[in-house]
Amino acid sequence: MNDEGEFTAIDRVHLERARLLAHRGWGHVHPNPIVGCVIVRDGEMVAEGWHTEYGGPHAEVMALHEAGAAAEGATAYVSLEPCSHQGKTPPCTEALLRAGIGRVVYGAADPGEASRGGGARLREAGVEVVGPTWTVARARSENPAFMHGARDPAPFIALKLAMTLDARIAAGAGKSTRITGPEAELEVHRLRKGFDAIMVGGSTATIDDARLTVRRVPPGRKAPARIVLSPDADLPPGARLFDDIEDAPVHVFCRADAPDLAVKRLEAEGAAVHGVAHNNGLLDLGLVSRKARELDFRAILCEGGGRLASGLLQEGRVQRLYLFVAPRTLGPGAVPAFPDGDRLDWTAFGPAVPPITLGSDTLIVLDRQEDSGVEEKA
Amino acid sequence: MNDEGEFTAIDRVHLERARLLAHRGWGHVHPNPIVGCVIVRDGEMVAEGWHTEYGGPHAEVMALHEAGAAAEGATAYVSLEPCSHQGKTPPCTEALLRAGIGRVVYGAADPGEASRGGGARLREAGVEVVGPTWTVARARSENPAFMHGARDPAPFIALKLAMTLDARIAAGAGKSTRITGPEAELEVHRLRKGFDAIMVGGSTATIDDARLTVRRVPPGRKAPARIVLSPDADLPPGARLFDDIEDAPVHVFCRADAPDLAVKRLEAEGAAVHGVAHNNGLLDLGLVSRKARELDFRAILCEGGGRLASGLLQEGRVQRLYLFVAPRTLGPGAVPAFPDGDRLDWTAFGPAVPPITLGSDTLIVLDRQEDSGVEEKA
Repeated sequence: MNDEGEFTAIDRVHLERARLLAHRGWGHVHPNPIVGCVIVRDGEMVAEGWHTEYGGPHAEVMALHEAGAAAEGATAYVSLEPCSHQGKTPPCTEALLRAGIGRVVYGAADPGEASRGGGARLREAGVEVVGPTWTVARARSENPAFMHGARDPAPFIALKLAMTLDARIAAGAGKSTRITGPEAELEVHRLRKGFDAIMVGGSTATIDDARLTVRRVPPGRKAPARIVLSPDADLPPGARLFDDIEDAPVHVFCRADAPDLAVKRLEAEGAAVHGVAHNNGLLDLGLVSRKARELDFRAILCEGGGRLASGLLQEGRVQRLYLFVAPRTLGPGAVPAFPDGDRLDWTAFGPAVPPITLGSDTLIVLDRQEDSGVEEKA
Repeated sequence: MNDEGEFTAIDRVHLERARLLAHRGWGHVHPNPIVGCVIVRDGEMVAEGWHTEYGGPHAEVMALHEAGAAAEGATAYVSLEPCSHQGKTPPCTEALLRAGIGRVVYGAADPGEASRGGGARLREAGVEVVGPTWTVARARSENPAFMHGARDPAPFIALKLAMTLDARIAAGAGKSTRITGPEAELEVHRLRKGFDAIMVGGSTATIDDARLTVRRVPPGRKAPARIVLSPDADLPPGARLFDDIEDAPVHVFCRADAPDLAVKRLEAEGAAVHGVAHNNGLLDLGLVSRKARELDFRAILCEGGGRLASGLLQEGRVQRLYLFVAPRTLGPGAVPAFPDGDRLDWTAFGPAVPPITLGSDTLIVLDRQEDSGVEEKA
């Protein structure tokens, strides 16, 4: 780590504020990262900013604008290393230098091939720079899809499961069961905002007949598309998914040799239908993933069912797990969340962020943490 | 609620400090409640105290002693309503009055028949009193066994389960499986300190052969006893439980008609053996509970196995659940944590305290919340 300057307890408090500000951009800036910035001069916070919309000014520029002349000689706290490249907006390093910022403290290293190196650029220009102060794991926990995308061409796939204490996701096969309470459901709508697409298995799409849209919270920059894996293309044309097709496209993946009539019926409803290879009726998830990325879906939230979740987990395609746990049990006859738990490899998974209580339910977030070997300063 | 005075944001901060201080008494004051106290004058904290040992001075007295003359006209923040009775120590209300405290803010109402009414006593004497500021549920979450004991003669029983994401507690029948990591195990040792006895089923005692003692953390006021439910009294005499019998008694509950030889063998090891009625070889848990209370075990931590846990849950005898969840799965062939989840009633259970991360594991704490209908101020 390039820690030329010292990272103090006060620095940690301001950087934490910047981190929290960043989250205001959730659902509005992807595939960009969420970023927050706080400017502090003589111990007083003189400005704060965050990346508010995709294509709009970065967090640093927002904060510098608010700070005005007060930025001269001040410290800028940024959750992500300031970018040093001309993207949709000019490089933040130059804006910081122009404003006369004397010190920069940042959390995560920028993994972007074009944008990285901002810290070094600022140092060269005489600014005291402290960072990265976060571990790779911490940086990932804040911007999982962005960090994943910087090193892996496959889409970032998060798996959301709502389950009981005895790890059941429905009372019985073919039964739609409300597992969690309203607070947890609200959080799911909030989460969806930050994804390009919501994915479910065909049985779940049929049984739950959910719309899989963002509701109950202010909308994000773009309504996430809906992806259904329906090998036989037998998703009912009357499914509620189609109610919102004007706002949020529906993509159905089926076997390449699915009945033509079924495919045509879905297309008539407005769905984009994609045929992929299958194995004993199970779609090739690698091909689904590749096609999804071609469609520019970089971050996908899979909301079940159990079979699709298992397939993704078994093949190591899940980067993050959102587990909503309700304080109740359904018994051994109910549908298990992990039907083949003995065949899953969990060695890479660990807590991404602290667990929280949502009404009566608990949300546990686990990240795949393959490359976290760096000690954190904070 | 008797809220004559106003409860401000600053009050909340100081009361939270008192609440945190209280926890320093965990394992040292039971069956008394843990209590913390902070004394603030002109916006400055002048003293803090907590109930440090059973029979010793209460939190208020500790803090008043530290404050000295600075207590005059100050505000005392106490996590529990000051007691108004002569117990092992004189009433705290009188100590507060003598010191000239001008205002008292407290969290939980004292449910004790003899000790309650401290708030009213202080008000009569002209002190501004704000409290109780906590709901019944919140008060219980801080002192679950004490609050339970004030309204129910049965022992307080907490159930600890270490399980995987797919709710498994062991890889296979008869196999002892380490589910959680070292941080979670440390927390279990810390928890044990606050209980009078640790209880397990006979199979678990035999298979795991655990000592069930407090280790790796500073000891509490008294080593908890170990209770084993062994219907046939066939706990192996060489069990490691007996290694620590000098410090921590072993009580074995068996059927009243258990083989005399087996009983004698256990008694020879130093165990106290209690015969109780059974039903098809399952001991009557009501009788076990009553006998345990006679032995002065007011707070019992049950650490499994699955069958005993199920029995206690089914009969509504569990007041609190400590669920340690490890980020892995064992599969459908492994031993379920809730083998009869369809027969359990969870309506009364809800989160007691926020969940926490312990290493890679998550601790979820649920309380039975039968009588929480009061709105919280905080």
